[in-house]
Amino acid sequence: MATTADAATVARLLDAFNREYDTATPGPVVLAKRLERLLAGEATIALLVGDPAVAVAVLTLRTNVWYEGRVALLDELYVVPELRGQGVGSALLVTAESVTRARGGELLEINVDGQDTDARRFYARHGYRNSEPGQDQPILYYYRELTDAS
Amino acid sequence: MATTADAATVARLLDAFNREYDTATPGPVVLAKRLERLLAGEATIALLVGDPAVAVAVLTLRTNVWYEGRVALLDELYVVPELRGQGVGSALLVTAESVTRARGGELLEINVDGQDTDARRFYARHGYRNSEPGQDQPILYYYRELTDAS
Repeated sequence: MATTADAATVARLLDAFNREYDTATPGPVVLAKRLERLLAGEATIALLVGDPAVAVAVLTLRTNVWYEGRVALLDELYVVPELRGQGVGSALLVTAESVTRARGGELLEINVDGQDTDARRFYARHGYRNSEPGQDQPILYYYRELTDAS
Repeated sequence: MATTADAATVARLLDAFNREYDTATPGPVVLAKRLERLLAGEATIALLVGDPAVAVAVLTLRTNVWYEGRVALLDELYVVPELRGQGVGSALLVTAESVTRARGGELLEINVDGQDTDARRFYARHGYRNSEPGQDQPILYYYRELTDAS
């Protein structure tokens, strides 16, 4: 489990993650500074694999009215390209579940791009559902950035 | 904005919400007790409309590594059946956005059942997206309950 001392390592891997998938990133310096603050709290948890680190998972805990304990969202799960297909992601996911349980978490949630069929298969294989019981339509994730003036 | 004194009112509406949609609910007494605790914190926000209350929104704030501020999830948005189609839901959503901004939140997220076409249209009309820019596949929500022994 990462401590504030690992903020730069977590930042480096998350930055590489977004660069690989052509997603915007503020860069490792900004991320490291932010992670130092977040990892000092108890709501953000980062898990690292290897030394030097070759994989990272980030999860956040929050409250939810339908659960007495908390719920967790797996925000990020990244394994460097050369080490994929060797069970590192599975090990991280299982550890994320254990850590969530240990903090009293009752649910683990993940948002997955619909076109990422590998990720969809990965989570389905690990017991994750994408629809309410008895429903065949998937549950969808909607978002709106509030930083604009609109 | 609901205070701990409104916990029973919020609980009554959320319980009615789940009963209307045949979703499990622990009942208003358990919910009220839980909400009294959650509303005393700053991460759970409930908004009520009317006296007696006829609509409720619940949102939770959490940290996210990609945002300097926090992100918010609109967990619940419910208007009693007799008052639908009159803009109450829109007013609640706009208020939820303002409250999120006021707390430094930069993103509002919502998970929507795929078969709930009314809700999907409602959020799309209010500027919510379901896919990454440049992608045509939706972002999907996956979950796993961790309360079992598995």
